[in-house]
Amino acid sequence: MLSELLLTEIVRLGTEKNLPLHRRLYEALRGAILDGKLGSGDRLPSSRELSQDLGLSRNTVVAAINQLSVEGYLICRIGSGTYVNDTVPKPVTRRRLARISQIARLSRRGLALSTVYCATQLEVQPFTSGIADFSAFPVALWQRLQNKHWRMTYPEMLDYSHMGGYAPLRRAVADYLRVFRSVPVDADQVIITSGTQQSLELCAQLLADHGDTVWMEDPAYWGAVKAFMATGLKIHAVPVDDQGIAPKAADETALPKLIYVTPSHQYPTGAVMSLSRRHQLLDIARRHGAWVLEDDYDSEFRFTGPPLSSLAGLDKDQRVLYLGSFSKVLYPGLKLGYLVIPRKLGDPFKQAHYDLNRPGQMPLQAALAEFIEMGHFASALRRARQSYAERRRTLLAALKPCLGSSAHISGAEQGLHLCLHLPNTVNDQALASRVGELGMIVRPLSAYCLERKDIKGLVIGYGYAPLDDIARYGPLLAQTISSYLARSEKTPKR
Amino acid sequence: MLSELLLTEIVRLGTEKNLPLHRRLYEALRGAILDGKLGSGDRLPSSRELSQDLGLSRNTVVAAINQLSVEGYLICRIGSGTYVNDTVPKPVTRRRLARISQIARLSRRGLALSTVYCATQLEVQPFTSGIADFSAFPVALWQRLQNKHWRMTYPEMLDYSHMGGYAPLRRAVADYLRVFRSVPVDADQVIITSGTQQSLELCAQLLADHGDTVWMEDPAYWGAVKAFMATGLKIHAVPVDDQGIAPKAADETALPKLIYVTPSHQYPTGAVMSLSRRHQLLDIARRHGAWVLEDDYDSEFRFTGPPLSSLAGLDKDQRVLYLGSFSKVLYPGLKLGYLVIPRKLGDPFKQAHYDLNRPGQMPLQAALAEFIEMGHFASALRRARQSYAERRRTLLAALKPCLGSSAHISGAEQGLHLCLHLPNTVNDQALASRVGELGMIVRPLSAYCLERKDIKGLVIGYGYAPLDDIARYGPLLAQTISSYLARSEKTPKR
Repeated sequence: MLSELLLTEIVRLGTEKNLPLHRRLYEALRGAILDGKLGSGDRLPSSRELSQDLGLSRNTVVAAINQLSVEGYLICRIGSGTYVNDTVPKPVTRRRLARISQIARLSRRGLALSTVYCATQLEVQPFTSGIADFSAFPVALWQRLQNKHWRMTYPEMLDYSHMGGYAPLRRAVADYLRVFRSVPVDADQVIITSGTQQSLELCAQLLADHGDTVWMEDPAYWGAVKAFMATGLKIHAVPVDDQGIAPKAADETALPKLIYVTPSHQYPTGAVMSLSRRHQLLDIARRHGAWVLEDDYDSEFRFTGPPLSSLAGLDKDQRVLYLGSFSKVLYPGLKLGYLVIPRKLGDPFKQAHYDLNRPGQMPLQAALAEFIEMGHFASALRRARQSYAERRRTLLAALKPCLGSSAHISGAEQGLHLCLHLPNTVNDQALASRVGELGMIVRPLSAYCLERKDIKGLVIGYGYAPLDDIARYGPLLAQTISSYLARSEKTPKR
Repeated sequence: MLSELLLTEIVRLGTEKNLPLHRRLYEALRGAILDGKLGSGDRLPSSRELSQDLGLSRNTVVAAINQLSVEGYLICRIGSGTYVNDTVPKPVTRRRLARISQIARLSRRGLALSTVYCATQLEVQPFTSGIADFSAFPVALWQRLQNKHWRMTYPEMLDYSHMGGYAPLRRAVADYLRVFRSVPVDADQVIITSGTQQSLELCAQLLADHGDTVWMEDPAYWGAVKAFMATGLKIHAVPVDDQGIAPKAADETALPKLIYVTPSHQYPTGAVMSLSRRHQLLDIARRHGAWVLEDDYDSEFRFTGPPLSSLAGLDKDQRVLYLGSFSKVLYPGLKLGYLVIPRKLGDPFKQAHYDLNRPGQMPLQAALAEFIEMGHFASALRRARQSYAERRRTLLAALKPCLGSSAHISGAEQGLHLCLHLPNTVNDQALASRVGELGMIVRPLSAYCLERKDIKGLVIGYGYAPLDDIARYGPLLAQTISSYLARSEKTPKR
């Protein structure tokens, strides 16, 4: 019964959407659960049985079941089997969220935080941006290092982490940044945080008051928008051009307290901030007594062109705070990042970080310190760069047919995504939905815009999807874009 | 040379302060580093050599060196030895912090966050409150569980954690709370956070706007004060009596949006909120449309008296959010806690938590889920209760001689600390400093007060120190208090 139902769905999804097999099985099972065809508490056949009944490889079945377990649809009870969860999560649409929020009487801030610029939480399809391929992470090596540090552990390692983090990790980060990013930094300027979100909140909480203005790039990185909304800042949007953030004289009437930028690879346009723009920005910061938050997003992956000094490296005035994380080279769930602060901010930042966040995870910090010291980080980075370079080449080649007068690419020199610019008459949200129906995720550029209405396009990631998927789906993506453009050119403008 | 210097210091500290040996060696080494007698980059003799030269046990030497490494004074280079760090941290006084902060141009919020109600970060002496004895944590078992889940791991487990956390852990928490705390809760109401600080921030961000009022107990838990300061709330202090928070009619003119309480064991007075007070509080919340944040701090450790239902268990109206953490039964650096939310808040909270915090650590969440499911949590709790019950008895016996008309204890029925109340004429800060000179940490009750000036006393913890230390230092503590009280009674009041 079940296997017939699933088979029918799998075939249908194959015809309609051309999804990979594990994805079709995932969709079929999820559909059966959401429709109630599989009731809560029902036991699933074993993966062996399913793979026989459906004629699929065991790996395919396991991949689908794992994904559903992670998302909470299924429960694996050890020694007993896999069951449909009694509390199946419901996918939440933006409209439904807004309705719920009003009923639930969230605050104005809460309503905004839970309904605008929200990330989708299921991002498993090809071309999702903002995520790296952590499936290549050397789990066995990592486990060995963790074990070593757990074996050597003494009680203090189980306590909260003091003084900005485990000292050897702060030193390893400082060494890495000095060598690879020319950031002049000592270990005592490094604070280990739980990642960029926590670093951003800490900066906003300590350096700005409610109602102060933060300059943001427009279009912008959603995570940073959220952090500034949560801390009560007024967001002033400054348009980005092909040299990065491009402030005009008029912008300076909105006096900045903080300026948040992603100079290495602007998220999402991919623009690399030019050297003259970097100097201009530091000059503005100096004139207004503002702090610059340099999120050195994607700096690890540069494919062509000369490296540019970080803003922190150019800063003569101790106004730049430098943010990084390990999630792109190791894995996202690690939740360790760093914040490099000017020396004079060291003591208050460490004290407030301890009081506000009570940081911890020292055995993990110790394993990471050794991972870096022993050169594993550098080799993981090297391997990743090679692998991403190939994906990038493959994607660029696949996209070639759809480029031309009405479509061009920016931001492909660096990072794990590129931006395909389209004419402003194109409805990029509808195009992204069309692509989504085919089992790929691309994001409409306009969805990242804070105020401006003059740019349209697609943000296309090549970090997450394996090379095979890029080779298989790339041409389909290009073809979908081309035919959409052709159609919309024929449609008379209203 | 070095060993003679250290020996002299160790003897001196023994005479003057009566500290345990590892603590004296720690102080002696730290002093030598801060004085520059040990220069940055200097290699320390091996722990074997040090233990021979100083006539101390190897364990004593290792304990001191470990503590100094954790604090960043020393670096252990594998296969090479232990060196003095080139970036020795400097102890920060409150006055110095305030000065630095002004120079560094923190925001008003930042200045407050880094200078008032700050926790000391080095809390290794006996009688420190707010911390459990995590040295008894079963590290080997924990390592085994972690290993199992790392071996079974699939790439999705390395990603961020979606939908409020790893589903089996949310289910395990719900089961635990239903059984042990009579909180009526389903797994989909549980959100896994990085601990109470993150839970508090999330509640404040989603349920309150800048300038809204939060009622807090006076005296109050510093961590919560910080979270509300960071999120821009106005704090209204409501005095605590022996039945917990005691709001008067006048308080209700400061309309509450949030009410934050620690009903199981008020921090720091230790008062257990009476049942009638619980109903009164829920009634106030209903009348004003306020949310109650129930921090069920120390609920795990009840020694005498009947259990009282949690506020969440009494709530008919879906106004209570329930906060807990695993740091007291497992270890602080674990950084996993939970937030139980009314059903109608589920979707927006999960979405905003993902967007703001990008939670992770799924392999750790999986290990914890199994730790709970397999009954290890329950047995760790049982063992801990027995061990703390004995420490509590020993401390109470030791304190007996100093009790009387001018000193009485509250809050010893539950939790890991008690509160010794003293006459309002006593300078409890001076008394706490005097105790500190003898190598113990107790906190002055007045340091926790938000507005009131009518209570003095000492907050004395028995969770962190081993039984031996309590037996050894308890009488010294009692004697110090007694003689201080005797002296201050003789001193004529001015």
